[in-house]
Amino acid sequence: MKKYNFNAGPSILPREVIEQTAAACLDFENSGLSLMTISHRAKNFQPVVDEAEVLFKELLDIPEGYKVLFLGGGASLEFCMIPYNYLEKKAAYLNTGVWATKAMKEAKLFGEVVEVASSADKNFTYIPKNFEIPTDADYLHITSNNTIYGTELRKDIDSPVPLIADMSSDIFSRPIDVSKYALIYGGAQKNLAMAGVTFVIVKEDTLGKVSRQIPTMLDYRTHVKKGSMFNTPPVVPIYSALLNLRYIKAQGGVKAMEKLAEERAKIVYGEIDRNKLFVGTAEEDSRSLMNITFVLKPEYQDLQDEFMAFATSKGMVGVKGHRDVGGFRASCYNAMSIEGCEALVACMKEFESNH
Amino acid sequence: MKKYNFNAGPSILPREVIEQTAAACLDFENSGLSLMTISHRAKNFQPVVDEAEVLFKELLDIPEGYKVLFLGGGASLEFCMIPYNYLEKKAAYLNTGVWATKAMKEAKLFGEVVEVASSADKNFTYIPKNFEIPTDADYLHITSNNTIYGTELRKDIDSPVPLIADMSSDIFSRPIDVSKYALIYGGAQKNLAMAGVTFVIVKEDTLGKVSRQIPTMLDYRTHVKKGSMFNTPPVVPIYSALLNLRYIKAQGGVKAMEKLAEERAKIVYGEIDRNKLFVGTAEEDSRSLMNITFVLKPEYQDLQDEFMAFATSKGMVGVKGHRDVGGFRASCYNAMSIEGCEALVACMKEFESNH
Repeated sequence: MKKYNFNAGPSILPREVIEQTAAACLDFENSGLSLMTISHRAKNFQPVVDEAEVLFKELLDIPEGYKVLFLGGGASLEFCMIPYNYLEKKAAYLNTGVWATKAMKEAKLFGEVVEVASSADKNFTYIPKNFEIPTDADYLHITSNNTIYGTELRKDIDSPVPLIADMSSDIFSRPIDVSKYALIYGGAQKNLAMAGVTFVIVKEDTLGKVSRQIPTMLDYRTHVKKGSMFNTPPVVPIYSALLNLRYIKAQGGVKAMEKLAEERAKIVYGEIDRNKLFVGTAEEDSRSLMNITFVLKPEYQDLQDEFMAFATSKGMVGVKGHRDVGGFRASCYNAMSIEGCEALVACMKEFESNH
Repeated sequence: MKKYNFNAGPSILPREVIEQTAAACLDFENSGLSLMTISHRAKNFQPVVDEAEVLFKELLDIPEGYKVLFLGGGASLEFCMIPYNYLEKKAAYLNTGVWATKAMKEAKLFGEVVEVASSADKNFTYIPKNFEIPTDADYLHITSNNTIYGTELRKDIDSPVPLIADMSSDIFSRPIDVSKYALIYGGAQKNLAMAGVTFVIVKEDTLGKVSRQIPTMLDYRTHVKKGSMFNTPPVVPIYSALLNLRYIKAQGGVKAMEKLAEERAKIVYGEIDRNKLFVGTAEEDSRSLMNITFVLKPEYQDLQDEFMAFATSKGMVGVKGHRDVGGFRASCYNAMSIEGCEALVACMKEFESNH
């Protein structure tokens, strides 16, 4: 049976990225050595990091003055690195869910934190609008896509203070105006690569403005200066990122990814809105194109386990909703095919006709 | 031509670990999904982390009260995590080289640092002996093996204060008396796994004794509490570690690894001491079994490039010495075969007879 991987992350990657990574593990570029065993200082690995940065800049049209970093530790480590590097007195945070809340918690160890707006009142089912950004804040932090709640900002807002965004789960799904951001970061394990590498896009002249001393590994300047090679980087995860960046470019870049995301969302949200059994959880204008969350209508709540079992029997993987929302979640990252979405819709339709 | 991988790290791994990792990237345990795309919360991944911890405990005979963690960020991140979690007033460090110095540098951000001894006077060619450990220190930090200088402590010292060891490059090469340590850590990319995961063996009751607030991701208690699953762990690197732990067990455990290490060292150091062209750089009683460093004798210094080219032509990979020592380095980690060492020796002999 064909399986469709709707995992929220780590998640689906293009088959060619998987196959090429596996092949490189066996023999890296005909070197006679496994990618798992080559030195990060080897002559044939530096080009991997270099090309990955070039493709990042090309695909996202990153202006001059920015560096792309490939680090370890995950986006959760960035939650404390950001205030370490940017918070002198006061930071502003937009609270759109669990991850934004976690990021705020770390910032509070370093200074004053202002929550500019929160959608906690409605279990984070929407992205707040028309909030005021304090002009004396050191930065504004946003989470562009909220994996758990299926909400997404999906535009580049204007901020009077340096804008920092966690784009873990929607990077490379649309063109971004990078010039509006001081820093963009995220874990790789959604739209970029296997788990184990974190990307950071940082505007160099925004660094070095805080007075505190920063541990070497937590100081972005360390990694900027050393081109992500201050210590041994996660070699194989970075290589899988490079392969995926090549794939995105070959597919037509982020505009093509955006078009696909819109098509997938139309198919799946279309069925959620049509189907008598289901209802979406996010407010319509906040709906994420990456994580499509839905539940059974109140009158059909007892069908929860049955639908899960039915969907699984049809090859759907990872469609269980997060415990904070319940119901179901179809994560539709870049590598999810239209066929996969149609298979999910067929499954929802068949389940409806059975009831 | 057969290649022999003497890289200092990332470095040689057993062929079966490489092949099984590549196979899992294509299809993880017949799940129909790539290991690169499965959720770390998947039912078939938790057993990977669990078995890796069980094998760590079994192979190193770790007593009750210790946890094994699999983190991201590399050993360099631990350099600041250790003082964050342990340094209240004063820490003691044994300075045996670049990595120990880097670890000390981070500690100085958190409190007083006492260098109990240093071998900097002789370019770190030996491990200091008979140093005094201040009994009022919060901990003593040691680097058990010094990859750059080819020196190794290779025994578990007695310390009146909690003992913390960076064992990045000699873990699993000998039995350890873990009960003597509060914490043992290291990057995986030598004797354990592909780059991208850091192991930490921590005695739980040594944590939580400092008064400062610790960022969540830098607090060992976070990872102890969540079984290394607080955030998305490096899934594929962890899996490669599990495969290697299984391999070590199948080979007879760390005692068998120690025997092999001694055999390899006898072969390579034997030739260094015999060959008229070469001389070892480390003092004899401090010689590392993992990283065997040697240079051309003063009268043969002009043969440096020629030997490098000759060794490369014979299939030797990564034998160039670190720039701080010069000459050559044969890193002989667990997966290095006797055949590989004999090939290196044959190469040295042939080069000698050519001159």
